[in-house]
Amino acid sequence: MSAATGEAGVGVLTLGETMVALRGSGPLKLGGAMNVSVAGAESNVAIGLARLGHTVRWAGAVGDDEAGELVLRTLRAEGVDVTAATRDPAAPTGLILFEPRLPEVTRVHYYRAGSAGSRLSADAVPAAFAAPGPPRVLHLTGITPALGPSARDACRRALRLAREHGAEVCLDVNFRSRLWSREAAAAELREWIPYVDVLIASDDELPLCLPGTGPTDAPEKSLIDGGVREVVVKLGAAGATAHTADAELHAPAREVRAVDAVGAGDAFVAGYLSALLDDADVPSRLERAVTTGAFAVASPGDWEGAPTRAELDLLGSPPGTVVR
Amino acid sequence: MSAATGEAGVGVLTLGETMVALRGSGPLKLGGAMNVSVAGAESNVAIGLARLGHTVRWAGAVGDDEAGELVLRTLRAEGVDVTAATRDPAAPTGLILFEPRLPEVTRVHYYRAGSAGSRLSADAVPAAFAAPGPPRVLHLTGITPALGPSARDACRRALRLAREHGAEVCLDVNFRSRLWSREAAAAELREWIPYVDVLIASDDELPLCLPGTGPTDAPEKSLIDGGVREVVVKLGAAGATAHTADAELHAPAREVRAVDAVGAGDAFVAGYLSALLDDADVPSRLERAVTTGAFAVASPGDWEGAPTRAELDLLGSPPGTVVR
Amino acid sequence: MSAATGEAGVGVLTLGETMVALRGSGPLKLGGAMNVSVAGAESNVAIGLARLGHTVRWAGAVGDDEAGELVLRTLRAEGVDVTAATRDPAAPTGLILFEPRLPEVTRVHYYRAGSAGSRLSADAVPAAFAAPGPPRVLHLTGITPALGPSARDACRRALRLAREHGAEVCLDVNFRSRLWSREAAAAELREWIPYVDVLIASDDELPLCLPGTGPTDAPEKSLIDGGVREVVVKLGAAGATAHTADAELHAPAREVRAVDAVGAGDAFVAGYLSALLDDADVPSRLERAVTTGAFAVASPGDWEGAPTRAELDLLGSPPGTVVR
Amino acid sequence: MSAATGEAGVGVLTLGETMVALRGSGPLKLGGAMNVSVAGAESNVAIGLARLGHTVRWAGAVGDDEAGELVLRTLRAEGVDVTAATRDPAAPTGLILFEPRLPEVTRVHYYRAGSAGSRLSADAVPAAFAAPGPPRVLHLTGITPALGPSARDACRRALRLAREHGAEVCLDVNFRSRLWSREAAAAELREWIPYVDVLIASDDELPLCLPGTGPTDAPEKSLIDGGVREVVVKLGAAGATAHTADAELHAPAREVRAVDAVGAGDAFVAGYLSALLDDADVPSRLERAVTTGAFAVASPGDWEGAPTRAELDLLGSPPGTVVR
Amino acid sequence: MSAATGEAGVGVLTLGETMVALRGSGPLKLGGAMNVSVAGAESNVAIGLARLGHTVRWAGAVGDDEAGELVLRTLRAEGVDVTAATRDPAAPTGLILFEPRLPEVTRVHYYRAGSAGSRLSADAVPAAFAAPGPPRVLHLTGITPALGPSARDACRRALRLAREHGAEVCLDVNFRSRLWSREAAAAELREWIPYVDVLIASDDELPLCLPGTGPTDAPEKSLIDGGVREVVVKLGAAGATAHTADAELHAPAREVRAVDAVGAGDAFVAGYLSALLDDADVPSRLERAVTTGAFAVASPGDWEGAPTRAELDLLGSPPGTVVR
Amino acid sequence: MSAATGEAGVGVLTLGETMVALRGSGPLKLGGAMNVSVAGAESNVAIGLARLGHTVRWAGAVGDDEAGELVLRTLRAEGVDVTAATRDPAAPTGLILFEPRLPEVTRVHYYRAGSAGSRLSADAVPAAFAAPGPPRVLHLTGITPALGPSARDACRRALRLAREHGAEVCLDVNFRSRLWSREAAAAELREWIPYVDVLIASDDELPLCLPGTGPTDAPEKSLIDGGVREVVVKLGAAGATAHTADAELHAPAREVRAVDAVGAGDAFVAGYLSALLDDADVPSRLERAVTTGAFAVASPGDWEGAPTRAELDLLGSPPGTVVR
Repeated sequence: MSAATGEAGVGVLTLGETMVALRGSGPLKLGGAMNVSVAGAESNVAIGLARLGHTVRWAGAVGDDEAGELVLRTLRAEGVDVTAATRDPAAPTGLILFEPRLPEVTRVHYYRAGSAGSRLSADAVPAAFAAPGPPRVLHLTGITPALGPSARDACRRALRLAREHGAEVCLDVNFRSRLWSREAAAAELREWIPYVDVLIASDDELPLCLPGTGPTDAPEKSLIDGGVREVVVKLGAAGATAHTADAELHAPAREVRAVDAVGAGDAFVAGYLSALLDDADVPSRLERAVTTGAFAVASPGDWEGAPTRAELDLLGSPPGTVVR
Repeated sequence: MSAATGEAGVGVLTLGETMVALRGSGPLKLGGAMNVSVAGAESNVAIGLARLGHTVRWAGAVGDDEAGELVLRTLRAEGVDVTAATRDPAAPTGLILFEPRLPEVTRVHYYRAGSAGSRLSADAVPAAFAAPGPPRVLHLTGITPALGPSARDACRRALRLAREHGAEVCLDVNFRSRLWSREAAAAELREWIPYVDVLIASDDELPLCLPGTGPTDAPEKSLIDGGVREVVVKLGAAGATAHTADAELHAPAREVRAVDAVGAGDAFVAGYLSALLDDADVPSRLERAVTTGAFAVASPGDWEGAPTRAELDLLGSPPGTVVR
Repeated sequence: MSAATGEAGVGVLTLGETMVALRGSGPLKLGGAMNVSVAGAESNVAIGLARLGHTVRWAGAVGDDEAGELVLRTLRAEGVDVTAATRDPAAPTGLILFEPRLPEVTRVHYYRAGSAGSRLSADAVPAAFAAPGPPRVLHLTGITPALGPSARDACRRALRLAREHGAEVCLDVNFRSRLWSREAAAAELREWIPYVDVLIASDDELPLCLPGTGPTDAPEKSLIDGGVREVVVKLGAAGATAHTADAELHAPAREVRAVDAVGAGDAFVAGYLSALLDDADVPSRLERAVTTGAFAVASPGDWEGAPTRAELDLLGSPPGTVVR
Repeated sequence: MSAATGEAGVGVLTLGETMVALRGSGPLKLGGAMNVSVAGAESNVAIGLARLGHTVRWAGAVGDDEAGELVLRTLRAEGVDVTAATRDPAAPTGLILFEPRLPEVTRVHYYRAGSAGSRLSADAVPAAFAAPGPPRVLHLTGITPALGPSARDACRRALRLAREHGAEVCLDVNFRSRLWSREAAAAELREWIPYVDVLIASDDELPLCLPGTGPTDAPEKSLIDGGVREVVVKLGAAGATAHTADAELHAPAREVRAVDAVGAGDAFVAGYLSALLDDADVPSRLERAVTTGAFAVASPGDWEGAPTRAELDLLGSPPGTVVR
Repeated sequence: MSAATGEAGVGVLTLGETMVALRGSGPLKLGGAMNVSVAGAESNVAIGLARLGHTVRWAGAVGDDEAGELVLRTLRAEGVDVTAATRDPAAPTGLILFEPRLPEVTRVHYYRAGSAGSRLSADAVPAAFAAPGPPRVLHLTGITPALGPSARDACRRALRLAREHGAEVCLDVNFRSRLWSREAAAAELREWIPYVDVLIASDDELPLCLPGTGPTDAPEKSLIDGGVREVVVKLGAAGATAHTADAELHAPAREVRAVDAVGAGDAFVAGYLSALLDDADVPSRLERAVTTGAFAVASPGDWEGAPTRAELDLLGSPPGTVVR
Repeated sequence: MSAATGEAGVGVLTLGETMVALRGSGPLKLGGAMNVSVAGAESNVAIGLARLGHTVRWAGAVGDDEAGELVLRTLRAEGVDVTAATRDPAAPTGLILFEPRLPEVTRVHYYRAGSAGSRLSADAVPAAFAAPGPPRVLHLTGITPALGPSARDACRRALRLAREHGAEVCLDVNFRSRLWSREAAAAELREWIPYVDVLIASDDELPLCLPGTGPTDAPEKSLIDGGVREVVVKLGAAGATAHTADAELHAPAREVRAVDAVGAGDAFVAGYLSALLDDADVPSRLERAVTTGAFAVASPGDWEGAPTRAELDLLGSPPGTVVR
């Protein structure tokens, strides 16, 4: 049971690829030093939730190598349950290189083709739903099914098990054009919508979740009509909106000095799900989401600056605040 | 005699605790690298004054350890007279950890309980007033009396000696709620007011210096009526005001790109006292105070960016200025 | 159940103080950069065992601060069970500064007076023996009782509980003259001997465990006569000896290029207990102990270079070995 | 032939001094770490052009020392032709120390007196015009003639050879008051004007290129009347203007988060000449110049952030752009 | 023509994969900082030769990405001709992670599956033999044919072209068990032997070059009988031997303080070929080979410490030598 | 009065050039990071003496620049009296680059031509002998007279003043072939011998101090016959010898793990003079000299590892010593 939240069992189960992440401080072609950490959309969410006191399980696959050990060490450090993670003796842990090119622009280079994470097996999924009990929420992103047929099958298996166990499903679309086409993404993700309770996406990703190929006037409405309970749209500097059958809400972005925007979307999801697990209402979920998202923007790294519950209030402090 | 100012003897004497200061570049709980320097409200002021060419003596206590050696090395390097400082063989030099948590928020962790600095003895104070002669100004902060009875007695002794030797007294209230309550602070500091010529405080610290417990409409006036010659109020981004029997002045803050606001208050004091030692009038003192404060905000570290007299004009240079 | 060893429950329970550890690369008084990690004799052993695939629980106390969070994050990362660790809201996590002064000499500065670790409460100990079941071995060092009466009582409570639960007891004497006198240490530790199955000490520490004050010809024999099953003597570069009722064994030190000897004794203990948990005989225990000790000497940090089971064979590789 | 531009022969030839450049991260007097790279107004331009796919030759002199090797290694790395550079066995390669003093102010300290670069010989110039053929543009700055008589003669020789070979001449005035007086500069540079096709200068440098000593109402017009084809005026944050016989154009500065303005002027020149080599019209030249200048302002170092042709579009990306 | 050696045309042509190389300072699983450089057996040789003043061309393939740019920048910096290198728009540049695990042991992790380097095309090889003329020596290693069928075909093409152009062929066997089996290696390399003039191998690699599967008493003799002119055997700390039809020579290893043995074999080859290009006799070749190999052992990095011709004499200096 | 030694006045006065010192960690031509400190033979001695508790004055010249400020800050930090140092507004502070090229070889590059230090004026010398009183010992090296006529005259003036004030004179020959020829050195230094009480030199430097040009059988004896009281010969790894009219002594070098031999000779001198100031006999002087020299060899930097009096006993500690 989580001390902070009183949750029994697992609050959130998530699965996907987490890679060793190398971050330079300038153009990659100039060489120099890189800092080594880990990154992955789903584990970023998992860490964000664990920092807020929730119980979270991450069930991806890493290689049986030192890079995989770093992934597992880091998640364990952050209190994420990795007992259902698998190690693939025949494939390496993926790698990601972040190259800050301009204050506003980061370039990302992946070494994940054929990685252990992309070979995540559907056979490993049932164990992730086992002891200490099924999760209240299953969180998936649209990245995992794009990694390959094995990882896609694992997602599908997870969706079915979530339904069997009565877990809610949250999907963050996270379309990656380097991994698959919009057509391929749409073909897959549309099949997922009937399972999804909370859909999180950017503006231009919504159509990927709808039948048909033409533009849509009110994709949120169509999705809600199609059974999605909450459609949450990330609008970057413009904040976010949440749509339900009853209401349409908007939350402006929190003002922060931008340091590193990578991971902000994942932090947003963590905040949203945290408030959901707290049984807070939709406006409160949105509010926490823009807050945790702002923390990510104001901190270097994908997840390193994620707030604990006690730290949530630090955002918005006047410049020069010293907490003694 | 100071080459820059022509001062004979000691311009300013100050006493208080200076600690070894470790500064990380992100959340402490993630480990990584920290940079080692020193910090202390009073020695920050001392360095600020020495950089501007004044003769300054710092008379705190450090342990007889390597950390104490670092404190003394650094102050000597900056030209601060430490010949009246004492070394306590039975207590360690204090430590302070700075943890930047957000661009606007720094967390500070102290390891100063039972430190040599908190055990500063009143017996060591007379020597600080001896050769090369008594100071023109004694500078104290409200931190030192909060460190323990020994350090409090040392402050009281210094106040009495200042009066005996005809030295002016400057007090920067610097209330620290981690060290004592507002009630305890008020009980002590109100006794000091009759000795104080220049009182420097933030807005909400003024009541600590006044008798009574209720709110006050014009605390500056009450303090001046009580014998304080100059009441200087630090208003952060709103600048500062100075109150005397004759006038009330305001100086806006200098615009700078904020890098690290820690130490800005101490730098402000250094600027104020520097102009006072130069026999400049109160408006000029305030002007130099907001300038040196701005240098601290624009530079990493507590005192590292303090300006020399020649550098004062650099503030306000257009972006991209190259001094060849 | 540990995948590597097939152990059910907890292999080893240990308790003691773990501090945030700062390591510079030269004289502390010159300032510069320090690297932040954690260190503690008992947690060094715990990590060493976890790396070798054993289940280990560490049950110390840290402050409710960021430094404490770093301690817990690190132990979790290494797979050490910290669910029985406690957080003290009223005392800070201790700090330790390592200062390499010569290639052969490291100076250590402690900030642990009044620390959370030194206030470890006997009341917290029973929980450490609870689910998932009592440990097979309780490991203590002579440092913890020297930290203060509270921590000493916690050790005594642990010794009694070990006996109740049928756990073996391992004691590493680790006498620290900065914390208590030889007399005080002897007075306490002699009371422990009846509980101890495996005693590990350096040569000159053995008399501390024996009654009387005079020199002893064969302290190992006296200890075994007094009920200790195995007396293991660390001899540094000369290796180690193990004494039992039946035999006296010697293992030479493994030859390595010395990088950082701090933590070597703890690594030695981890190797010894690892083989004991594997049900290996005493010569094999000694052999693994000198091997893991050699890893510590050949690696920077207290525990960072501790080997996994698969890495044990790397020691003794010819210079220039490249494992692809 | 350049793959990117289809240029035969050398697009631009430039000569001048390139030094080893050391960059600290704060006040030099505090010691600490410095990063080692190279810098020189002309080689900054050369690298900027090479990054954009042009063929460029740099023909300066370095010492026959490791510092000179660093200069040549770096230029070769960037694809700048250094086959016409010379090595002076009797003089060291110059050094430059960059000291960031405030976010807006960098101080620069030179160690170039008597350097190999300042002894650049006119005898070395003809080889720079030889195979693979004369350049389309010769680029000079007003720094080189200020370094000493030898370097000045080399410039004069280059101007004459440019005329002989029909190469256009670009001059960036770059007046350095530490190297010579305005009078000395004017006396030399006025003699150059008849050779100059493209004159680039800041506002207050224009009079240095005109006869007479009094102020001038329209220096650009006088220069054009005197035969200069294009007069380009760098206005910093106010952008830039270009004057020809037919037109007067203005381009505002591109908005970027300023990181390090050193080298911005050189990057501006590189952009201007790149578009000129592309046979783009003057407005397009100005547009590329403010774009490449903005890249320099947004990147640390003199030339390190110079864009490739493909990167030009990155400027102006919304904050948080991730290029995957 | 090389200034140092008077060579016309290209001294050595080599082809193979060069990767971006990341070097940590401890166990990878602990994260931290890594330094970014490049590495590749063949380009290590190329740089070693260029440092000694020879003209060298490297004709591998890199991706059309920033990592590939770093490879080309570095080789250009070192004066290696990369005009015949190719860029593969459809595959990334490979990556290699060096993890120092013990003073004697480095672990290496590759990300080269499907890399541009492994897809090197035979079609790109003829251009490498074109202007400025065919090389005097073609250098290959046994790594390249193990990368995949495309790279293997490129090697075969190069061997045939070498014969056509009368270039000598040097083969460094460099068997990599992670890339192919001994059987597969032998099947390929035995076909190469008729083309090879200089064969360089470690002791246990010689049988891979011989027909038959049984052990051989004198593999060197069999190889020479098979047409190889020189068989050079690297013996690590035991030095090296060279076998020709007429003689068998041995050179002991040079004594150095070992810093990083990675790249020592490649440096050995560079020294051997350098002396061969100088028309030195076999004993002199062996002598230079052990010298350049020793430089690599005494320097961090794969190639970074390779000596220039003038530096060759530095090896063997007494400790504490200061060259002013 | 020095607390450690009870010395009144100044124990040792020294003068010479101190430069800003940049230390890389590998070949300079590869760029990277350099660490910034200060170095100078005479100030190395001064710091060594101050660390041992003696009063020392350094009277060199630095520029009126930030580099000069670093020199003075560092010497003040170390407790060296710099009140008689001068600042030259018309010349820069010298620079020195240390490039470690092999474990045994450091290359040094100077930027001191025309430096403030080389322009040290004889006019500044008398003040160095003034309050607080003349020194007991004047220490000079053979580097200063080689820097130029002004610095040479300053040395001569100092020698005459030493005689007037009855100060002993110590000369460390320190011949630098880059600064002057053996002939020039001999011509100058022979004139100094009549002033010298303690002559310190390496083996091959002794002839420079003797009349005549031929080899000498017993140069030490000739020097003593010429009036030198003690001739001390540094023999590197072979230790040192001291010759007086009465005796010839030898001390072997202390065994240490060599880290950085630069500065070892200066540290040797500091130890010798320290014992001389303590009125210890010649064998004790030699013993302390080899001890302080060994500290320098075992520590990075020129002077950074110099021992305090309390640290002298650390040398010779067994590997792995932990001082708690």
